[in-house]
Amino acid sequence: MDFEFFMPAQLIFGRGKAKCIGSYVKSIANRALIVTGKSSAKKAGYLDLVTKSLEKEGIDWALFDEVEPNPLTTTIDRGISLARKSKAEVIIGLGGGSAMDSAKCIAFGVKKEDSIANYFGTQPAGEVLPIVLITTTAGTGSEANNYAVMTNPETHVKKSLSSPDMFAKISIIDPELMLTVPKKVTASTGIDVFFHSMESYLSKRCQPISRPLSLEAMRLVVENLKGAYEHGDNIEYRERMAWANTIAGIAINLAGNCGIHGLGHPLSAYYNIAHGETLAAVSLAFLRFSIPEASDKLATIAEIFGVETKGLSKDEAAEKAIEALETFMESLALPTKISVFGVKEEDIDKLAQNAYENSIGNFKASPREITLDDARKIYRDSL
Amino acid sequence: MDFEFFMPAQLIFGRGKAKCIGSYVKSIANRALIVTGKSSAKKAGYLDLVTKSLEKEGIDWALFDEVEPNPLTTTIDRGISLARKSKAEVIIGLGGGSAMDSAKCIAFGVKKEDSIANYFGTQPAGEVLPIVLITTTAGTGSEANNYAVMTNPETHVKKSLSSPDMFAKISIIDPELMLTVPKKVTASTGIDVFFHSMESYLSKRCQPISRPLSLEAMRLVVENLKGAYEHGDNIEYRERMAWANTIAGIAINLAGNCGIHGLGHPLSAYYNIAHGETLAAVSLAFLRFSIPEASDKLATIAEIFGVETKGLSKDEAAEKAIEALETFMESLALPTKISVFGVKEEDIDKLAQNAYENSIGNFKASPREITLDDARKIYRDSL
Ligand SMILES: [Fe+2]
Ligand SMILES: [Fe+2]
Repeated sequence: MDFEFFMPAQLIFGRGKAKCIGSYVKSIANRALIVTGKSSAKKAGYLDLVTKSLEKEGIDWALFDEVEPNPLTTTIDRGISLARKSKAEVIIGLGGGSAMDSAKCIAFGVKKEDSIANYFGTQPAGEVLPIVLITTTAGTGSEANNYAVMTNPETHVKKSLSSPDMFAKISIIDPELMLTVPKKVTASTGIDVFFHSMESYLSKRCQPISRPLSLEAMRLVVENLKGAYEHGDNIEYRERMAWANTIAGIAINLAGNCGIHGLGHPLSAYYNIAHGETLAAVSLAFLRFSIPEASDKLATIAEIFGVETKGLSKDEAAEKAIEALETFMESLALPTKISVFGVKEEDIDKLAQNAYENSIGNFKASPREITLDDARKIYRDSL
Repeated sequence: MDFEFFMPAQLIFGRGKAKCIGSYVKSIANRALIVTGKSSAKKAGYLDLVTKSLEKEGIDWALFDEVEPNPLTTTIDRGISLARKSKAEVIIGLGGGSAMDSAKCIAFGVKKEDSIANYFGTQPAGEVLPIVLITTTAGTGSEANNYAVMTNPETHVKKSLSSPDMFAKISIIDPELMLTVPKKVTASTGIDVFFHSMESYLSKRCQPISRPLSLEAMRLVVENLKGAYEHGDNIEYRERMAWANTIAGIAINLAGNCGIHGLGHPLSAYYNIAHGETLAAVSLAFLRFSIPEASDKLATIAEIFGVETKGLSKDEAAEKAIEALETFMESLALPTKISVFGVKEEDIDKLAQNAYENSIGNFKASPREITLDDARKIYRDSL
């Protein structure tokens, strides 16, 4: 089997590391643009913590704090303008996936002439400003991969841009920043981690280095997400979820996601639903559809959920894994049907077309390949 | 827990990849120095395969083919001179650990004024020529880490140099090159892979990302080394050992080795014994010494060896792991005692002093810390 490994970001992991960011940035640049969301990083005091550390090391900074959930290409274009105007030499992404992905796109766009929307869905190389990421959620794994997901508001397409040069130079993963993540966000970002690890494991692109990482990340989520959800101020649960997130981030960087992410993106693009919730809502039907080609791996997932699989056929064990996932998601108050977002039978064709056109790679990498008709069926079974 | 991940080498894995080396080097440089051993890579035709591919892409090359097993600092100094004289822009290491480590040291030394011996045992940063590695054994994992081990012939010290800038830019892992590895070398390099994975797992520096990689690599070695040893021309066994090697290489890059490598190095330095054989010969006594602090992890290792541990105490399971390792090594005709190298009771003090002075980091990272007296005891128990 042929495969490649490339993940050049330096990951710095530990409690209290975020407040040392200035000492890491110092060796890279003297002027930073901080890219963050509209309020949560500010409210929690993390922005102060970052700017203080930068100032202590004599690093100038400007702020772009307009990133919304499911960031728009138009927003990113505004960030690119500010990066140019402020003569930023490094782009610092502070926040969840939206802020980090926007930071990557801004770093990518500074040296380009045209709108970021023109690079949408491509994998171009080229000069990219150094990127430093601080993740405040566990999370998208964005700190350990070179993907950035954006939504084009004109076309309702949510798609990723990736470039070999779009890895962070340094990523700081500080579980102390995750203590304030609200319950609902803990659940939706945590289940995203689960799907990164599960999809990279189920993917046809699963390979020898990603496989043990995918399995470990799944195990960590199953053992710790419920604790992080119920006891948000417990640093141990937060820390182990942060490990899971980063490990899964490396795994998707190697093996990619598959059908669940492909089917989830249109729901975010049309209904502006949190990424993790869209995944949860389509996952059960996707997995049942996949049993004929994935029962071995699903049986392993059943074991990760603590199901006793002795004496069961592979198909029975696979069904048990899906039931265990359903119970797990329900315990986190996550949606398991797309009807809760307001999706109706008559919307399905539009969603399936959108997913099929924009996520064909994810569909082809799925253990059982997904055709346009299959996509319709999986959405219908998710109603 | 605090930890870091940094492994920026691009690993290219697959059958037949080595003959495409020119297309990878092309984007980096126009003049290469190939660093290899005295005969094996030439005999097997791999040198031809590399030079042809370079020439096809218009890349000039010079050859330094004087690398010995356990490469000497004096040899590396000669390679550095040749790299300067030939105006090499990239250093290509072709071979096992000795050739790859020498290539790293030569790339490091080109821009320095003094002998490589002066950098021995340090971790300096600085300008390093781009490094491309092609591993012909499974192996040292050198293609996935920034360590280079050298022996100083004047002081009889075998020690590693590592620099954050001493990672390969590109590493090619082509299992087809491993089909010709002789039986004895298959065993000694294969058991080195086992100890990289086991020691990085037992190490106090074992961390969330390295742990699953260490366990996976151990599993792969236990399942495939015997096959690669007995059926050297079977590409499946070779391929899976190559995976294990690279995965373990990433793991030691994160978590390091511990006592077995620390105790093994002096045996190579004084008796010029193959690295893997020295490890095998001290491993059993090291593990018995470590049981009080490592019985949990050793019980897991017993399970990897297929031992039924139900109903056993942790200490009993640990002892079973050690017995299973002994049987495994015997089936590969590896030494399990240092007396077979000619080591005598009166040599032990010298060995222990040497190990203690030069591998204190490995001793401190061991699950049960090793004092100078402990080192003497472990060598004595290995007689
Ligand atoms: Fe995701
Ligand atoms: Fe080794």
